[in-house]
Amino acid sequence: MLGTGMVGRTIADKLLDLGHEVCLGARSQDNSGAQEWADLAGPSARSGSFAQAGAFGEMVFNCTVGSASVEALKSVGQELLSGKILIDVANPLVRVGDATALTVCNTDSLGEQIQQEFPSSLVVKALNTMNCQIMVEPSLVPGTHNVFICGDNVEAKKKVVELLRAFGWPESDIIDLGGIVASRGTEMYLPLWVLLRPTIGTAHYNLRIVS
Amino acid sequence: MLGTGMVGRTIADKLLDLGHEVCLGARSQDNSGAQEWADLAGPSARSGSFAQAGAFGEMVFNCTVGSASVEALKSVGQELLSGKILIDVANPLVRVGDATALTVCNTDSLGEQIQQEFPSSLVVKALNTMNCQIMVEPSLVPGTHNVFICGDNVEAKKKVVELLRAFGWPESDIIDLGGIVASRGTEMYLPLWVLLRPTIGTAHYNLRIVS
Repeated sequence: MLGTGMVGRTIADKLLDLGHEVCLGARSQDNSGAQEWADLAGPSARSGSFAQAGAFGEMVFNCTVGSASVEALKSVGQELLSGKILIDVANPLVRVGDATALTVCNTDSLGEQIQQEFPSSLVVKALNTMNCQIMVEPSLVPGTHNVFICGDNVEAKKKVVELLRAFGWPESDIIDLGGIVASRGTEMYLPLWVLLRPTIGTAHYNLRIVS
Repeated sequence: MLGTGMVGRTIADKLLDLGHEVCLGARSQDNSGAQEWADLAGPSARSGSFAQAGAFGEMVFNCTVGSASVEALKSVGQELLSGKILIDVANPLVRVGDATALTVCNTDSLGEQIQQEFPSSLVVKALNTMNCQIMVEPSLVPGTHNVFICGDNVEAKKKVVELLRAFGWPESDIIDLGGIVASRGTEMYLPLWVLLRPTIGTAHYNLRIVS
């Protein structure tokens, strides 16, 4: 797990609950928050640098701040990430005045940038369109609602679908949007997602595609 | 009605059904498609240039191609649009390679550009997140689903809500996102909307915010 914020810890906790071993990676090896998390989370949990976490994982989650994700992944390095599924949950969000904007969008996306920077990794964009608690416990939002995935490698996406099912997502609620280029669509949804927050009055909301 | 494409005609037809008079405006006054529409649509329908349609309407819909909307509105001119509610349904979509992109986004939007260009008009962004048939007949998609509005003038938004209710939208399904700056959110949703089309297999889909 790369990233020690709310998103990274929430997914890391869920992975532990599911019986996986997790290394929570921070910019520096001696990040006290990450160490404390590992101490409290039990024997299957550990902490380390981004590179140590990247080396540890069979599957790597990018939950770093979107605007710094490529740098964070570079500090892991191509070699350690090669051949691995890299689930990109980050959004390249930035505040511009009172509004939410993206550092990359429209004709490019963070998902694509990561895939381009690490061509031997199997990048799957997923889970980036909702609050992190819903990512790992979709039943917090009642009824049917959707999670999007995209990526260039079909087998990698199958593995991610398996993981999402373990997180509690019914397979019929998982929408595969195609190649990693579709990251543009899910990342560009974020400004609307942010705008909806005060209107809905809770962070526990999601979208459902109805037809 | 500015714009003689599918969206403009569909909304124009609905306005006629509701008992309004409509002038369908085209780039040129003698647009044969617009004339034919008016001839077939009965005595409450007429066609004309953008300027004639802008002069005719108490309320003006922008359903022109998004990338050409500001130019189309300039050909109507500030004076004819002053003090009027201007409902902007357009999206600044453009194809870039195989992907859908926007000609303006992220730190600006078409809705904002129009409001800035026509400061004495009351711009309300609405209906731009779905197929045009659903705009005027929301029951084509079963159950609850949402339409977004935004704009800087509260009274103008109230009038638009009234109109949307006449179109068939339950008031509880109309989400007011705030000022016209929120156009960024609804316009930037479009790439995801376009990506969903082949996955869903029909144009009759929409999103529902669930919480």
